[in-house]
Amino acid sequence: MNILILGGDGYLGWPTAMHFSQMGHAVTVVDNYFKRHAGLELDFESLIAIPNLTRRTKAWKEITGKEIKHYIGDITDYNFLKDVFITTQPDTVIHYAEQPSAPYSMISRDKAAKTLQNNLTGTLNIIYAIKETVPNCHLIKLGTMGEYGTPNIDIPEGYIDIAHNGKTDKFLFPRQGGSLYHTTKVQDTDMIWFYVRTWKLRATDLMQGPVYGISTDESAQDVRLTPSFHYDEIFGTVLNRFIVQAVCGHPITIYGKGTQIRGYLNIKDTLACVYLSAMNPPEGGTLNIYNQITETFSVLELADKVSAAAKSLGYEVTIKHIENPRIEKEEHYYNPTYTTLKGLGLTPNLLTNEILVEMLKTVLLYKDNISVDSIFKGIKWK
Amino acid sequence: MNILILGGDGYLGWPTAMHFSQMGHAVTVVDNYFKRHAGLELDFESLIAIPNLTRRTKAWKEITGKEIKHYIGDITDYNFLKDVFITTQPDTVIHYAEQPSAPYSMISRDKAAKTLQNNLTGTLNIIYAIKETVPNCHLIKLGTMGEYGTPNIDIPEGYIDIAHNGKTDKFLFPRQGGSLYHTTKVQDTDMIWFYVRTWKLRATDLMQGPVYGISTDESAQDVRLTPSFHYDEIFGTVLNRFIVQAVCGHPITIYGKGTQIRGYLNIKDTLACVYLSAMNPPEGGTLNIYNQITETFSVLELADKVSAAAKSLGYEVTIKHIENPRIEKEEHYYNPTYTTLKGLGLTPNLLTNEILVEMLKTVLLYKDNISVDSIFKGIKWK
Repeated sequence: MNILILGGDGYLGWPTAMHFSQMGHAVTVVDNYFKRHAGLELDFESLIAIPNLTRRTKAWKEITGKEIKHYIGDITDYNFLKDVFITTQPDTVIHYAEQPSAPYSMISRDKAAKTLQNNLTGTLNIIYAIKETVPNCHLIKLGTMGEYGTPNIDIPEGYIDIAHNGKTDKFLFPRQGGSLYHTTKVQDTDMIWFYVRTWKLRATDLMQGPVYGISTDESAQDVRLTPSFHYDEIFGTVLNRFIVQAVCGHPITIYGKGTQIRGYLNIKDTLACVYLSAMNPPEGGTLNIYNQITETFSVLELADKVSAAAKSLGYEVTIKHIENPRIEKEEHYYNPTYTTLKGLGLTPNLLTNEILVEMLKTVLLYKDNISVDSIFKGIKWK
Repeated sequence: MNILILGGDGYLGWPTAMHFSQMGHAVTVVDNYFKRHAGLELDFESLIAIPNLTRRTKAWKEITGKEIKHYIGDITDYNFLKDVFITTQPDTVIHYAEQPSAPYSMISRDKAAKTLQNNLTGTLNIIYAIKETVPNCHLIKLGTMGEYGTPNIDIPEGYIDIAHNGKTDKFLFPRQGGSLYHTTKVQDTDMIWFYVRTWKLRATDLMQGPVYGISTDESAQDVRLTPSFHYDEIFGTVLNRFIVQAVCGHPITIYGKGTQIRGYLNIKDTLACVYLSAMNPPEGGTLNIYNQITETFSVLELADKVSAAAKSLGYEVTIKHIENPRIEKEEHYYNPTYTTLKGLGLTPNLLTNEILVEMLKTVLLYKDNISVDSIFKGIKWK
C-alpha cells in the first residue's frame, strides 16, 4: 500500500511510519516541525534529542534498507498538500498533523486561533485533496476520547441510537470537549462526518486516549530512531510526565483530587490499532469510529503505579496534589466501550510493573537531559 | 443598552441595527462588506441598490435624528475587533457576521476554507474579546435550524436528555448540517458551548430558519433604509427567490420533489426575536438555545402560495422541478419545537396571502433591476 502519514515527525507519527515501512508498505511522511518550533518558543524539548526527518529517514535506510520519503511543509497550504497527494497517490492517509495539546490551546487567543486554524483547515484540505486526487483513499484520523468528555452515561464507539417521543434515530454520540483543542477535534468529527455522507468518502476516526511509552519494536533498533518523548505540561502525556518526575526527584503532581478517570494505551498499541484500521477500510460513505484505549485508570492509580515501580528501583517518590489548572469534573462516571479494535485483532500491551520499570530505566539513561523547569509552568483554563 | 451588531450591513444586520436604535439603544455596527465583494466576484446584487454604511447611517440620522455608529473592518482581525469592544463597551453583541450561504460554501476548496476561517475564527475572536474586555456582555449568536438536519425524531430547543443503559444525562441535541456552511454553525455551537461552560459567559444561540420579507417598520420610512434583498441561488433565501421568479416570469424552481420541510419566519419576527433575546439575557455559564421559526412549510407549499398570490395579481406562473443540486433527504420527518420565543412575547407575522402580495408589489417596483442570469447557476453539492 501507499501510506501517507501527516505529522510524521511527531511522537506517534514517526513510529507509525517505521512500522508501516517495516511491514513492507511504501511510506511518505509530511511535517511542518510545528512542535519543534513551539518547543523553542515555550522552552520544552524531547527528553532524547531526535534527528530531523532528513536524518531520521537516512538512518532508517542505513539500518533497514527501507526508504521513507519525507516532505517538510504545512498541510494548511492546500497547493503544497495537493501536490503531495498527486505525487504519492496514497491508498491510506493517516492524519496526525494536528496541534495536539489541550494546555497549548488555552494559553492565549493567538494559540487558540492557531489550534483552530491548523486543525480545521488542515483537515478540510485533506478532505479536498482526497476528493480531487484519490477519491478512494482511506482517511484514518486520530480523534481523542476527550471528545466525549465525561458524560453520566456509557460511552459507545462513536454513535448512539436515541429514542425520543416514540421515534428513534441514530446519531453521532453528542460530544463536548474539555478544552479548545478537544473542541477542535469535535469540530473535525462534525466536518469529516459531513463530507463522508456527502461525497461517499472512506474514513476511520480513532478516538484515542493518552498514550504512554518510549519505545517500539522498530525504534529499539537504534537510538536515532527513538520517538520524541515530552514530559512537559504542554506536550507530555500524563504517564510519561509521571515517569520523568519520579526519575528526577520531582513530586508526582496530581491535578486536584486525581479521581479523574481516562482510558490509556501503550504506544505499541497505537501502531497496532492504526495498522489494523488501515487493513480494514470501510466502504465509501462510511465513517468508522473506534475507541482506541486498552484500559482505564484514575490519575491517582497511575501515580500509585509509577510510585511503586520507582520505589522497587530504590527511588524515593512523593505524590503531590495541586490546585487543578483545568476546568473538569474530578469525580464522575466513566464507562467507555472499546471492543472493536480487539475484535479486529488487537492484543493489548497492558500497563504492567515490568513496563513501568523499563520506562523508568530508559528515562534514567537520559536523566541529565531533564529540564525541571519545563515540567510545570501553570497554564490555567481560566 | 450598548448594542454591538457584527455583520451590520447584511440582510438582517442593518434592519436589526435600526430596530434597536429606534427603541432607544446606543447601536454600533461592524461589517467587512464581504457580501458586496462576493457579489462583485460571482455576479449577484441586491434587488434594490443599498447605500454603503456611511451613507445609510447618515440617512438614518437625517430621518430619525438617531445615530448608529459604524466601523468597516474584519472581525477575524482580533486587534481590530478588540479595539471595537474597548471603544463601544457593549452590553450585548449580536453576531450576524458569518458567511451565511450553503451553496457558497460548496463551490470550491477556497470558498469552503473561507467559510470555515471566517465563521470559526470570527466567533473565537468575539468570545476572546468578550472575556478580555466585557466579560459580562451577552453574546447573541445567529445559529440555524439547519444545524439539526432532518432527524427522524422530534427536534427540541437545543438540548436533549438521553437515557442509555439505565443512566441519563443532558446533552446538546446531536447536530448534523447539510452543507459545509451548516457544519461551521454546528462547530460554532460546539465552541460557544465550551467557552460558556469554562468561562461562565452569557450566550443565546438563535436557531433560525430561512427568513423572508423585504421591509421592516424602520426601513419603510425611506428607500435608502431598505434591507439588502438577494434573489440569487447563493444568498437569496427560498421564498424571496420564488417571489422574484414569479415577478420576472422565470419558473419557480423546486429542487427535487419539493417535499423538503423547513421552518420559516418573517424578517420582522427576526428583529422581534433578537430584541426579546437581548432583553432576556441568561445567567453567566448558561447557553440559551431557541428555535427561531414561526411555522413550517414544504418547498412545494411555498411555491403554491407564491403562485396563488401572483396569479391573484394577474401573473402567469409556472412551477418547475429540477434535479436537486444538494444532497438532502427530500422525504423526511420534521417536527421541531419552537415555543420559547413565543413564551417571551413573540407575536408571529405568519405567511399570509396579503404579505405575499405586498412582497410581490414591492419587487414589481424594481422589476427592471432583476438579473435573470443570477437566479440559478447550478452550484452542486457533488
